[in-house]
Amino acid sequence: MLYFNNDYAEGCHPKVLEALCRTNFDQTPGYGEDAYCAEAARKIRALCGREDVAVHFLVGGTQTNMTVIAAALRPHQGALCAVSGHIHVHETGAVEATGHKVLALPSEDGKITAAQVRQAVESHRNDGSFEHMVQPKLVYISNPTELGTLYSLAELTALSETCHELGLYLFLDGARLGYGLMAKGNDLTLPDIARLCDVFYIGGTKVGALFGEAVVICCPALKEDFRYLIKQHGGMLAKGRLLGVQFDALMTDNLYFEISAHADALADRLRDTLLSLNVPFLVPGVTNQLFPILPDSVLDKLSEKYVFCEQQRVDETHRAVRFCTSWASREEAVDALCGDLRLLFGKN
Amino acid sequence: MLYFNNDYAEGCHPKVLEALCRTNFDQTPGYGEDAYCAEAARKIRALCGREDVAVHFLVGGTQTNMTVIAAALRPHQGALCAVSGHIHVHETGAVEATGHKVLALPSEDGKITAAQVRQAVESHRNDGSFEHMVQPKLVYISNPTELGTLYSLAELTALSETCHELGLYLFLDGARLGYGLMAKGNDLTLPDIARLCDVFYIGGTKVGALFGEAVVICCPALKEDFRYLIKQHGGMLAKGRLLGVQFDALMTDNLYFEISAHADALADRLRDTLLSLNVPFLVPGVTNQLFPILPDSVLDKLSEKYVFCEQQRVDETHRAVRFCTSWASREEAVDALCGDLRLLFGKN
Amino acid sequence: MLYFNNDYAEGCHPKVLEALCRTNFDQTPGYGEDAYCAEAARKIRALCGREDVAVHFLVGGTQTNMTVIAAALRPHQGALCAVSGHIHVHETGAVEATGHKVLALPSEDGKITAAQVRQAVESHRNDGSFEHMVQPKLVYISNPTELGTLYSLAELTALSETCHELGLYLFLDGARLGYGLMAKGNDLTLPDIARLCDVFYIGGTKVGALFGEAVVICCPALKEDFRYLIKQHGGMLAKGRLLGVQFDALMTDNLYFEISAHADALADRLRDTLLSLNVPFLVPGVTNQLFPILPDSVLDKLSEKYVFCEQQRVDETHRAVRFCTSWASREEAVDALCGDLRLLFGKN
Amino acid sequence: MLYFNNDYAEGCHPKVLEALCRTNFDQTPGYGEDAYCAEAARKIRALCGREDVAVHFLVGGTQTNMTVIAAALRPHQGALCAVSGHIHVHETGAVEATGHKVLALPSEDGKITAAQVRQAVESHRNDGSFEHMVQPKLVYISNPTELGTLYSLAELTALSETCHELGLYLFLDGARLGYGLMAKGNDLTLPDIARLCDVFYIGGTKVGALFGEAVVICCPALKEDFRYLIKQHGGMLAKGRLLGVQFDALMTDNLYFEISAHADALADRLRDTLLSLNVPFLVPGVTNQLFPILPDSVLDKLSEKYVFCEQQRVDETHRAVRFCTSWASREEAVDALCGDLRLLFGKN
Repeated sequence: MLYFNNDYAEGCHPKVLEALCRTNFDQTPGYGEDAYCAEAARKIRALCGREDVAVHFLVGGTQTNMTVIAAALRPHQGALCAVSGHIHVHETGAVEATGHKVLALPSEDGKITAAQVRQAVESHRNDGSFEHMVQPKLVYISNPTELGTLYSLAELTALSETCHELGLYLFLDGARLGYGLMAKGNDLTLPDIARLCDVFYIGGTKVGALFGEAVVICCPALKEDFRYLIKQHGGMLAKGRLLGVQFDALMTDNLYFEISAHADALADRLRDTLLSLNVPFLVPGVTNQLFPILPDSVLDKLSEKYVFCEQQRVDETHRAVRFCTSWASREEAVDALCGDLRLLFGKN
Repeated sequence: MLYFNNDYAEGCHPKVLEALCRTNFDQTPGYGEDAYCAEAARKIRALCGREDVAVHFLVGGTQTNMTVIAAALRPHQGALCAVSGHIHVHETGAVEATGHKVLALPSEDGKITAAQVRQAVESHRNDGSFEHMVQPKLVYISNPTELGTLYSLAELTALSETCHELGLYLFLDGARLGYGLMAKGNDLTLPDIARLCDVFYIGGTKVGALFGEAVVICCPALKEDFRYLIKQHGGMLAKGRLLGVQFDALMTDNLYFEISAHADALADRLRDTLLSLNVPFLVPGVTNQLFPILPDSVLDKLSEKYVFCEQQRVDETHRAVRFCTSWASREEAVDALCGDLRLLFGKN
Repeated sequence: MLYFNNDYAEGCHPKVLEALCRTNFDQTPGYGEDAYCAEAARKIRALCGREDVAVHFLVGGTQTNMTVIAAALRPHQGALCAVSGHIHVHETGAVEATGHKVLALPSEDGKITAAQVRQAVESHRNDGSFEHMVQPKLVYISNPTELGTLYSLAELTALSETCHELGLYLFLDGARLGYGLMAKGNDLTLPDIARLCDVFYIGGTKVGALFGEAVVICCPALKEDFRYLIKQHGGMLAKGRLLGVQFDALMTDNLYFEISAHADALADRLRDTLLSLNVPFLVPGVTNQLFPILPDSVLDKLSEKYVFCEQQRVDETHRAVRFCTSWASREEAVDALCGDLRLLFGKN
Repeated sequence: MLYFNNDYAEGCHPKVLEALCRTNFDQTPGYGEDAYCAEAARKIRALCGREDVAVHFLVGGTQTNMTVIAAALRPHQGALCAVSGHIHVHETGAVEATGHKVLALPSEDGKITAAQVRQAVESHRNDGSFEHMVQPKLVYISNPTELGTLYSLAELTALSETCHELGLYLFLDGARLGYGLMAKGNDLTLPDIARLCDVFYIGGTKVGALFGEAVVICCPALKEDFRYLIKQHGGMLAKGRLLGVQFDALMTDNLYFEISAHADALADRLRDTLLSLNVPFLVPGVTNQLFPILPDSVLDKLSEKYVFCEQQRVDETHRAVRFCTSWASREEAVDALCGDLRLLFGKN
């Protein structure tokens, strides 16, 4: 079987594995206070173009989201996010388990707008019983989103300005950040993100690492005591240097960006094939996730050879599915899939 | 000014006050372990037609909702409710502060259906990543709802059967239960509710008491250690007998039901007037809350003499407002309002 | 039976009851935004000698403690308190239920010292793995303490200076504050407390009210959004004016202080009798709670006529018990008890 | 420098690393639903001698402790543990952050007894205001303890019988379980632990893995929905197979036990040297952690060449320190330390 169901089916990039093997018997202080973490953080600060940001390494995405949000909010405050946001639907209520409501906003494409944020905050503030309602205080976005879409520089700038005008934090979940940054048509850079967001993370788990997310805290108020929060929420790895070693490798010689570009290029190849076959998409996208709408007959046939994700039924004979490429995807596998698609559509 | 903005503008019914005065210097054990609470509980059990239910008295509605839900759920479980449900919108995230997600279902009239519950549970169970999502385990409904609508016996029976088939608890918030039970067209009785729900409460705050809600626990699994939960969530009144004294008075000689019927009758009088003037309603209703849609000009005029609640703007010249009657409403006040409405509509 | 087991066995002082009756049919805004609450707050600010403090009214003590602490702390922070502190032993883990650890310090007499606070904070800060431990951020004291002892002005000043030097909040639980302020030998005033503490409350439940605690927030940082926290933790009474009416009555014409002095005077009478009989005390005290150590034989005899609390067994033939007087205690009851004690000790 | 400060200074055992490298490009399902996890679980069930236990893999110890305790307790329940217990002192209040109080029992050697548990539970149940106190429901022990001591079979049996008689869960934190099982004088086996405890974990992080703890759930009531809890508490690794691969390697050919025995043997060599020099110990021990009390002068000299942990000052010229050996300790390093100790004591 060839796997296109997600971007975490394999282990890690060979260079990351090599670094782990090479450093395996080094003796270092625990809990992220080692030289590898320091060096990885230094490289990330340089890539962000800001010496003043704090960088922390956590193990996984849900853990990172709940730790950042718990660190940022007082008990009566909540996080605005798209109705499709990962914290709203796929983290088993981890944010609520820290005591905070997720305030979902409607969204077709996984994104929310500055206007929606403003409207939510103003309608809260203007309500006569505002103290009976959760106070919006943080905006959670993911980029790329759960639907593979991207924020433009203009959109992120508008969100940032609105959040800061209204006194909200802007938090960007970058579980797949590399795939977004390297996508065709993306106009956001890491320094833009570090300038516009209060806190964000650079995902490692889905982009070449065994595991790990690098949290970048830009807003001074969010920096204080963050390590206590990591420890309390179970995210402080005893052998913290494993995170430093991996991110050091990924941030060396552009590795993180090259392997992201590789996945995007293969996704583009698959996307072009689908478009050439006039296959419609649930959501248009430019990153490593594709959501084509295909006939059941085609999907049944494909499933004999390929693994992919069910997304949703669209009509009686069609459903939307998700295909993912990743840093680990092989060109031949994508070509095989493209070939089979053309065959099934009688277009060879 | 004449107040129609809510049903908690005054203190308590004279008979309740009289009972508080009469017993003021009695010395009793604290924390609800006194004879008044025992007697009030006895009367409630009798009215429910079940000797086996547990009855507890708490101070307010938000407190009751969060205590019941915290008692019922494990950490990964959540409460299904209408998008307009009080726990979802007007309790400052009290349920989330106990760690649980509120899973909102769409609703136009404040109610949810058995079919919606089934669909939510089945779509959870059939999802490949169900362990990444909050598990629905309790259904929260209010009756009357926040929009003044009522569940029929058939609807509540269907909800109950569905919940029990699927292993969910059914919790009915009866903050305004009296106004529901005595409304024209209502076909639910207290014994029905005690038979169909796992836990519910009989609201006192809005129906003749200074404060207080009587929780009735029908399901054995929810009875265990409930007093610990009350204490932990700040709902255990030192002078608990104040709750017993009040509910004893309310449950004596049908008082609770008579004063509820009084409010409903006055609401009907106002509703009939509005209907006779062809005023449309945001939601049709039969209880003490009315949501008419009125021209801004009429509302501006009314607001010189009457206090009411803004609900929502409907179009450029109309808005929906809420008028409430209560156990304390005076006939003359309602008649004055009806008269002024007829005048403003030129229909006298 | 004559009750000396606690100070909340009766309802409220007649003047409080009279005020509740007199205002019963007034129509007011809900949730504490009424004129009675405003007036009670004004009187409390005046008694504190500070116009800049915020005053809020909550229903009960556990609720108040958890709301204040939840409002003050970030998730990784905890509250230092005496091992006998109410939040540590008698609130069913309400503070922990808001996510915070109670850091108990040893104490024989219910009090903690500035030196203990300093030592706890410094040992935390000097520990190599301080981020693995809860950060002390708030000091909780009760005055009078759970053992009836009092802080002196010098002790409270030292605590206040130490807390502020170290960046901690000082929170004083005044559930029985009146009995402390009026006790012989007390040298603290309400303005002292308002000057030295960051937040404290004036207890009503045990001092003449049906229920209610008046929270006084002195520290600006703790004032922000406090009403959201009250609502979230179930402490916002719909008919909030009930709290205002009661505290207005208590703070009028010195009532709160006079009824406190009454209880203290009766406690002194009982204490003098016990001392004249050479009865030892578990803890020496000057307020309305007494903890004498008495022979089992005497206690068995007394229990036929009087209700009191078991505190602890001291040796095979003696146990410490608690006798309480209150605003409601009658002189004749105390005299009867004193007479019976003298008789039982053969000293009449 | 030679490191004896802890047992997590290096990466992982070469055989574990080899397995990670070998399987790196395998494509597997995520979140622990892969064949490696299944195989590791199978081996652990076999080693426990019970086919009916559930085995789950989490990333770290704090995460495991809070997840197990959150899964086991209702909101008003707490965990009894030694005052030195890891959950009480070194997890930044992670358990409290899930809402539960840790009920600390006095302990000199890191252990608690069945009698202490019985006394705590009975004193709770017999207290007149038991509902005002946290209900003990789970006993947390660590084996080896934080002080390197071990429970005997008799002690664990007594704890188990007492817990089950009283309706409490027994949870054993085995972060260093291997070092305990292989220590001289230990009489506990893995099947004993699986028979006597309701839930326990086999630590990987400190015993040869990069990271990972294998939770074994023996009690049926604790098995339900445990994966939801793992996800909610941030412990579900996307590439879950990393945990399976590591534990599979550790549980193959006795590796886990052999490397534990290696550490214990080196610790014994160091312990024998210290004893031969008449060095006293803070706590006697038989596992890989040693807590000798040494003169400041000796420690100052040692610290030029060796890294160890400060434990506590004992008197003006002596302090207790911690030396750890581990699976990775080299014989020559231990011999060097022993030689230097003998030299410093003038005993060569």
